[in-house]
Amino acid sequence: MSEAAPLGAEIRQQLAAASTATLCTQLFKRGLRHQFIQGVGLMTPKAGPMIGEAFTLRNIPAREDLAGPDRLADPRHPQRRAIEECPAGAVLVIDCRQNRQTGALGDILITRLAQRGVAGVVTDGGMRDVTPMAEFTIPVYAACPSPPASFHGHLAVALQEPIACGEVAVFPGDILVGDREGVVVIPRQLAAEVAADAAAQEQLEAWVLGEVQAGRSIFGLYPPDEAARARYQAWRAAQGQG
Amino acid sequence: MSEAAPLGAEIRQQLAAASTATLCTQLFKRGLRHQFIQGVGLMTPKAGPMIGEAFTLRNIPAREDLAGPDRLADPRHPQRRAIEECPAGAVLVIDCRQNRQTGALGDILITRLAQRGVAGVVTDGGMRDVTPMAEFTIPVYAACPSPPASFHGHLAVALQEPIACGEVAVFPGDILVGDREGVVVIPRQLAAEVAADAAAQEQLEAWVLGEVQAGRSIFGLYPPDEAARARYQAWRAAQGQG
Amino acid sequence: MSEAAPLGAEIRQQLAAASTATLCTQLFKRGLRHQFIQGVGLMTPKAGPMIGEAFTLRNIPAREDLAGPDRLADPRHPQRRAIEECPAGAVLVIDCRQNRQTGALGDILITRLAQRGVAGVVTDGGMRDVTPMAEFTIPVYAACPSPPASFHGHLAVALQEPIACGEVAVFPGDILVGDREGVVVIPRQLAAEVAADAAAQEQLEAWVLGEVQAGRSIFGLYPPDEAARARYQAWRAAQGQG
Amino acid sequence: MSEAAPLGAEIRQQLAAASTATLCTQLFKRGLRHQFIQGVGLMTPKAGPMIGEAFTLRNIPAREDLAGPDRLADPRHPQRRAIEECPAGAVLVIDCRQNRQTGALGDILITRLAQRGVAGVVTDGGMRDVTPMAEFTIPVYAACPSPPASFHGHLAVALQEPIACGEVAVFPGDILVGDREGVVVIPRQLAAEVAADAAAQEQLEAWVLGEVQAGRSIFGLYPPDEAARARYQAWRAAQGQG
Amino acid sequence: MSEAAPLGAEIRQQLAAASTATLCTQLFKRGLRHQFIQGVGLMTPKAGPMIGEAFTLRNIPAREDLAGPDRLADPRHPQRRAIEECPAGAVLVIDCRQNRQTGALGDILITRLAQRGVAGVVTDGGMRDVTPMAEFTIPVYAACPSPPASFHGHLAVALQEPIACGEVAVFPGDILVGDREGVVVIPRQLAAEVAADAAAQEQLEAWVLGEVQAGRSIFGLYPPDEAARARYQAWRAAQGQG
Amino acid sequence: MSEAAPLGAEIRQQLAAASTATLCTQLFKRGLRHQFIQGVGLMTPKAGPMIGEAFTLRNIPAREDLAGPDRLADPRHPQRRAIEECPAGAVLVIDCRQNRQTGALGDILITRLAQRGVAGVVTDGGMRDVTPMAEFTIPVYAACPSPPASFHGHLAVALQEPIACGEVAVFPGDILVGDREGVVVIPRQLAAEVAADAAAQEQLEAWVLGEVQAGRSIFGLYPPDEAARARYQAWRAAQGQG
Repeated sequence: MSEAAPLGAEIRQQLAAASTATLCTQLFKRGLRHQFIQGVGLMTPKAGPMIGEAFTLRNIPAREDLAGPDRLADPRHPQRRAIEECPAGAVLVIDCRQNRQTGALGDILITRLAQRGVAGVVTDGGMRDVTPMAEFTIPVYAACPSPPASFHGHLAVALQEPIACGEVAVFPGDILVGDREGVVVIPRQLAAEVAADAAAQEQLEAWVLGEVQAGRSIFGLYPPDEAARARYQAWRAAQGQG
Repeated sequence: MSEAAPLGAEIRQQLAAASTATLCTQLFKRGLRHQFIQGVGLMTPKAGPMIGEAFTLRNIPAREDLAGPDRLADPRHPQRRAIEECPAGAVLVIDCRQNRQTGALGDILITRLAQRGVAGVVTDGGMRDVTPMAEFTIPVYAACPSPPASFHGHLAVALQEPIACGEVAVFPGDILVGDREGVVVIPRQLAAEVAADAAAQEQLEAWVLGEVQAGRSIFGLYPPDEAARARYQAWRAAQGQG
Repeated sequence: MSEAAPLGAEIRQQLAAASTATLCTQLFKRGLRHQFIQGVGLMTPKAGPMIGEAFTLRNIPAREDLAGPDRLADPRHPQRRAIEECPAGAVLVIDCRQNRQTGALGDILITRLAQRGVAGVVTDGGMRDVTPMAEFTIPVYAACPSPPASFHGHLAVALQEPIACGEVAVFPGDILVGDREGVVVIPRQLAAEVAADAAAQEQLEAWVLGEVQAGRSIFGLYPPDEAARARYQAWRAAQGQG
Repeated sequence: MSEAAPLGAEIRQQLAAASTATLCTQLFKRGLRHQFIQGVGLMTPKAGPMIGEAFTLRNIPAREDLAGPDRLADPRHPQRRAIEECPAGAVLVIDCRQNRQTGALGDILITRLAQRGVAGVVTDGGMRDVTPMAEFTIPVYAACPSPPASFHGHLAVALQEPIACGEVAVFPGDILVGDREGVVVIPRQLAAEVAADAAAQEQLEAWVLGEVQAGRSIFGLYPPDEAARARYQAWRAAQGQG
Repeated sequence: MSEAAPLGAEIRQQLAAASTATLCTQLFKRGLRHQFIQGVGLMTPKAGPMIGEAFTLRNIPAREDLAGPDRLADPRHPQRRAIEECPAGAVLVIDCRQNRQTGALGDILITRLAQRGVAGVVTDGGMRDVTPMAEFTIPVYAACPSPPASFHGHLAVALQEPIACGEVAVFPGDILVGDREGVVVIPRQLAAEVAADAAAQEQLEAWVLGEVQAGRSIFGLYPPDEAARARYQAWRAAQGQG
Repeated sequence: MSEAAPLGAEIRQQLAAASTATLCTQLFKRGLRHQFIQGVGLMTPKAGPMIGEAFTLRNIPAREDLAGPDRLADPRHPQRRAIEECPAGAVLVIDCRQNRQTGALGDILITRLAQRGVAGVVTDGGMRDVTPMAEFTIPVYAACPSPPASFHGHLAVALQEPIACGEVAVFPGDILVGDREGVVVIPRQLAAEVAADAAAQEQLEAWVLGEVQAGRSIFGLYPPDEAARARYQAWRAAQGQG
């Protein structure tokens, strides 16, 4: 699935302007009801929105004889390889089985990812070193701060496989979009149409919000009935957007 | 129960000056040990304290053939009716069965509630659009940010019934008081006496805190023994409050 | 175990400069994998790092006939005794069985602890009055804000026993170190060596981070191979630290 | 919805012969993915399968001043009314908010329901007196044995409303079918078609199972391809069922 | 509290005839709402009812350097001491912090307790070797089968302290009563009156059950109104029990 | 790892005679503390002990457009392939992310596995059709009965990868041993030594149990001191086992 053409600039722009709430609704309309990653928050408050293709890392529970700091020196260790192989512009997505007791990564590895141009990091486990991350501009999403290192609880076993993250299926190449409220997973082949429809929904809802701020009732307005849709189109035409 | 007289200005003033911690203690003294709504936080950091009578909305789990964006256009839909019918000065309390995967409301509907003078919103489920809500002055309490819309997980079935919210029984007309730490539910008929006793407790504890800040031991002071109570009364008299 | 000599200034300085993440790794290297207190956060954002010996308080579930505000006047009540007996420089650690529905302490008692020079407070339960605590400089760690007072859920039964806190064994005299990410428990007898090795690890990792910021790959660098270690030693010598 | 015609004998026969597993699959094919009540088991091992229309009882959390043994004498108490009003042939479904600490009913009330010809009882909470229930022939499903009486945790507030039970929406009149593995909720209007298709699926799968027992591979057999379907039809014809 | 006189034969007989459900109601009437141990079941199906005074053992989480099979040889090890010191007729109650991943005891230690005449074992953690226990006649209550030995997760630290077990406060000397549905904790000083009132409640409810089995409505009968109470007294007199 | 030589008859015999409790202790002694699969039970009470090499199947959360009954006809579907490819004598281990709401397999597929000589099935998710499985002699371990089919919650993505099952790392070829209490995972390379030491431990503990049944104290006996070990050796010699 990752052979798809790279995301075009317009799609990126549309996704950047859409909230995860709007994207969830567009996915719901296509029958996909479970695309929002559960239980994660933004650890890097200075970061902007996140858009990128998923590059996946899969962990299983640590086994004491196979996990420890010494193992990390092996250049074939999948966690270390992920840091150097995740492409610029992609999002590193890590399956931690919602384990809050272990930190998936820390500030040094995230700094390297940022240096390499990676678009963001998402894990359903914990994150080390969130204090220095308060200044980072790369978006990092995790379940909670968790200082114990990955070898406390995880054994990294594979890159670029389909994984679970926060109860969502994530395939390599899926489009991940993050805002301050969390992360939504868009199947690669739906990205263009979801982006376009989300942009339209955002425009309509901005107008609806203005109407509400002006004192109108939501009945007939949200969702808009035919009369409201006509007013919206007239307003758009007046704005030169129609 | 909602036929009770509206809350008087004095009671409101006393409740506004009391912390939820103090109100929980006053309710405990009356045998009510489970009146603090579990698992919710304030999503609107710029809002002040919340006081108002409960107006309730009850959800059950979504059934796929009955829940979806199209249903929201029906003016009899209880969620939409709640937005237009919750009285000014009341608090909209929504039973979401502590479901964190679904957002109960979003910025457009909350804006309408604020426009209509509603005093606040409380749900034990998720909340959409918490990013724009960072600027709202209406207090909104929820379990977590949750972008998926209500139809992902809920079917609204009734208004103004007794409900559960965060493991607390909430009857229409109960008084909800919220501060930065959460929300307490005061049975309507106890509001006046709880408010008065809470105000007295706050005054006493302010004096106790001053004593502690001045270096006194808590023994005999907190809770105050007779000697401490006498000193407090003398101090109050000196302040012209006795 | 609490008869050990007080922590020396150098150890304190080393611990103050180490993150909880680094301390967890040093403990892991000594076979201790579960020393990070689970599920607590810092309630006092203006506080600095916390270092001190554990002074413990143990609670069991409240029994209605034994717990209530009246009981708190008894000077033998272990919770009240803890407030007056926890030594200056020590950390009060409270076993609340991870009960989020009850507040272990509130602002008056924490103020008294701060007045007495106590180094910090840690509980795996809730905390009352976190709003005024936003200004406190004593570090207070808890599971969540929870306005109901301790008698809602707890009966204090003992001081200075070994306890559980956030799934970690805590013995009186153990060294607790807290930063913005949480609290780690260091067995008393390991404090000196863990502190020294943690300081060395922090220095090495600061150099590694600089290398990464300068664009180097993590392979061979993190963890450092022999060549990288040699470069580090040369750099240290150049800094006059060797 | 409860005005629908009573379930005919053929539908009852088809449902009695279908497993809850088969019924879940038939509902899935109609877009309903969440109809199996979560977290309940059969407390009455001597009971046969359960089929009946839902009669609902809704509880909210107990409030100490409103719940207690004395309240149960009031003939308007919804829990007591449920015992006398649930129709013969119906299933009493009780919303206990998945509270395992409280028993919804006990042996006396269940005996009365059985006397009155009620078809079964389902709750997502606990159940009292499961020891004598080991001999009952009325099916009773609950989360676990739980001796504390309903007033420990619940306040009964309403009959015959839509409710949640084990994360499933249950409307009065819905058809509940229970076997030894649990309970599935069939929307009333789908009962006839689901029953017919489930019966056909059971017949097909019985033949498939026989083929597997005879040593065949599941490829092409389960699910059956055209050739397998033809063999099945030939077999049915040979049985005189075609 | 354990200095109280031993339980008399009559009290034991009354408690043996009462269900835990009835005992919970008697405790509720005395204001004690949380005396049923949560989350445990009977591991020894051939055992009869359990009655005895609590002898307590307290565990904290294992620390790797202090817990292991070698430690068990130390005769001061509290877990081993509990096996030899728990008095005949008493119930060994073990605080395992509801940890299901570790077995508190196994068949050898339970066999020793049974040999010594101990009345039963209760823990809110796991239990090893439940297969051979299927034949035991000493009652053993635990959260689940859990083969890993105590040193996997626990460090035994004290005997005969007040503890938590399944979210209930247990003091040494409290009376524990167990039936097939679980275990209730009766404060020592309430044992006599609770036993007497429970026996009376059981007798009344046996009569009520007979009435229900004879076809009567529960209204006026359960709870009984004055007329029903009079019929009950007449029936008792006729039985020669009045 | 699966290239290892097949398990010899002696090792199988030793493992069949060892309880999972004993095997957990032997693994603990080798530094492996987390090898017991959490949260599963035996669904097939007539089955004997289970021993075999792991053959793994990995699921991720279902995505609505990729999961459904139609997909199961594809002979490349990993779940269906597992049924036909899992070798005779092996144990099929399925990663279901501890999801209790979905059944991993049902009676037809398990029947096929039994036909093919597979040694057992283990999943940390639910299981369909446990009623007919009550008669099966192939051991099946699962979290709970769960009638909804795999496509309700899972998408099968891979065979023979390292997986998580019940919080344990499972590699293809690891030895799984199950008794009535659960399943333990033995790394392939440790099987021979763990089997031998477990057999010795079982023999010693059988003797210890006899001593306890004869009335001896556990002090000095369990664990045995030198004198006890000498008595054991003498007893073994007398039995002709020395």
